[in-house]
Amino acid sequence: MNKLLIVGTVAFDAIETPFGKTDKILGGAATYIGLSASFFKVKSAIVSVVGEDFPQEYLDLLTNKNIDISGIEVVKGGKTFFWSGKYHNDLNSRDTLDTQLNVLADFNPVVPNDYKDAEVVMLGNLHPLVQSSVLDQMTTTPKLIVLDTMNFWMDCALPELMDVIKRVDVITINDEEARQLSGEYSLVKAAEKIHTMGPKYVVIKKGEHGALLFEGKNVFFAPALPLEEVFDPTGAGDTFAGGFSGYIAQSENVSFDNMKNGIIYGSNLASFCVEKFGTERMETLEKEEVHSRLQQFKALTQFDIELS
Amino acid sequence: MNKLLIVGTVAFDAIETPFGKTDKILGGAATYIGLSASFFKVKSAIVSVVGEDFPQEYLDLLTNKNIDISGIEVVKGGKTFFWSGKYHNDLNSRDTLDTQLNVLADFNPVVPNDYKDAEVVMLGNLHPLVQSSVLDQMTTTPKLIVLDTMNFWMDCALPELMDVIKRVDVITINDEEARQLSGEYSLVKAAEKIHTMGPKYVVIKKGEHGALLFEGKNVFFAPALPLEEVFDPTGAGDTFAGGFSGYIAQSENVSFDNMKNGIIYGSNLASFCVEKFGTERMETLEKEEVHSRLQQFKALTQFDIELS
Repeated sequence: MNKLLIVGTVAFDAIETPFGKTDKILGGAATYIGLSASFFKVKSAIVSVVGEDFPQEYLDLLTNKNIDISGIEVVKGGKTFFWSGKYHNDLNSRDTLDTQLNVLADFNPVVPNDYKDAEVVMLGNLHPLVQSSVLDQMTTTPKLIVLDTMNFWMDCALPELMDVIKRVDVITINDEEARQLSGEYSLVKAAEKIHTMGPKYVVIKKGEHGALLFEGKNVFFAPALPLEEVFDPTGAGDTFAGGFSGYIAQSENVSFDNMKNGIIYGSNLASFCVEKFGTERMETLEKEEVHSRLQQFKALTQFDIELS
Repeated sequence: MNKLLIVGTVAFDAIETPFGKTDKILGGAATYIGLSASFFKVKSAIVSVVGEDFPQEYLDLLTNKNIDISGIEVVKGGKTFFWSGKYHNDLNSRDTLDTQLNVLADFNPVVPNDYKDAEVVMLGNLHPLVQSSVLDQMTTTPKLIVLDTMNFWMDCALPELMDVIKRVDVITINDEEARQLSGEYSLVKAAEKIHTMGPKYVVIKKGEHGALLFEGKNVFFAPALPLEEVFDPTGAGDTFAGGFSGYIAQSENVSFDNMKNGIIYGSNLASFCVEKFGTERMETLEKEEVHSRLQQFKALTQFDIELS
């Protein structure tokens, strides 16, 4: 079985949407990535950090999904990273109410020995220096390195971000971030420019409007599944990244055609994530549900035209 | 050959985009619909009205595309409908600078005798009473009636709009209009509600984010082609409607599967329309270009996943 190394936050979230609000619940990019990737036949491990306040049941939850948590450092006396946000009525935008870095402020990632030769590395959204440090620790060159990031690092750590972007095969960012990073409004032009920064593959996430995969002149589009109701978008992008990287790690095929399937699986899993608060839906999701939704994605996009 | 009856404006537009501005040029919903439908093997006619100021060369342009213009009334001494608008930098929104109804204010559509048994009727965006009047004049029940409309009629003539919506098979509106008409934010719920108003098929246009086709629980999605540059979005929605209705009229197959092809063709043709100002691109477009772009649409959306 191939190995997938995941780096990212494991955290507390407090979320408010038009449908309700939560107390502190399980969150974090690596959490969502790990849960999503657990639907594939891969050995996966998370590299992250939490405080002593982090409940054992949350760690157990990850372990029960066969995620290796030996790379999650528990800082004695430390407090876990906390994020709180409130979504607007359209669920497309949100305000951050509170961010407490806590133990994340001094995080030095340590890759477990057993994962230094992982075939796929998924660098979840974190400080680019942390992402680089993980790559530095790999003893063999991964088949595929995927990086997720956000506008915050473009604003505050652009040189460090550019350094790590240079080293990855795939970057996943949202449309606004692609525009900011490239200075191009057209996503086609944005992807072209981002290619020149390093990544052979550029994935642009458009939320409810789907995701685009670019490799030079090749383009593929995966729609988001039209849903009756989006309940809570938190973690959808990370779940997408987890589905993508999990599928690629399982199939060990980094061709453009296989990447297409990866972003379909990413969209598939993300469409479940948003159905309930936080990680709730991903915790109970069954493989059969994912397979059956794959048929919905096919029905949604496949057509058969004769030229006329 | 099947007949396609088109009703809608034939007009003057003056357009400003970030790339430049035009003087008064050829515009109007029926113009774009007609040009787009001319790529299919159908007999088509436009029912509309213009003033005496309307240049013969514009009428000749339509005739040269094999569009029957006997239903375009030329009002002696009258002035042609004029619209002027300026697009914002993102091209997703625009301000109307001027609207002069002119001859449109007293328009009484007269369907040419030869088209009273048209297989497909495409009701372009116009006052719903005009749309109804066209349907009243049909002597045989069309195989398919498609209606396009806009928020303006929802604000100013809702009862009349609801009356004509009841009578059509397909409605094409944009996402914001679907939300306004239904009172539902979720497009899935919006489509459900609009079904109950009459139309068996609901097409929701999302501009650069593609288009959704709903028939009860069946959903299909056609992406917009990612373009290097959108030059002028004017007429894209009408071109979409023309491609859709032209293809259906040609194939005379109103199944859900064939409607999918219709919205792919609609998206295909619309992707050309936006490449130049006004109708410019549609005037010179060749059938081979449309066919070759169809391959791009396939590459963009088709995938082949084995369950894993």
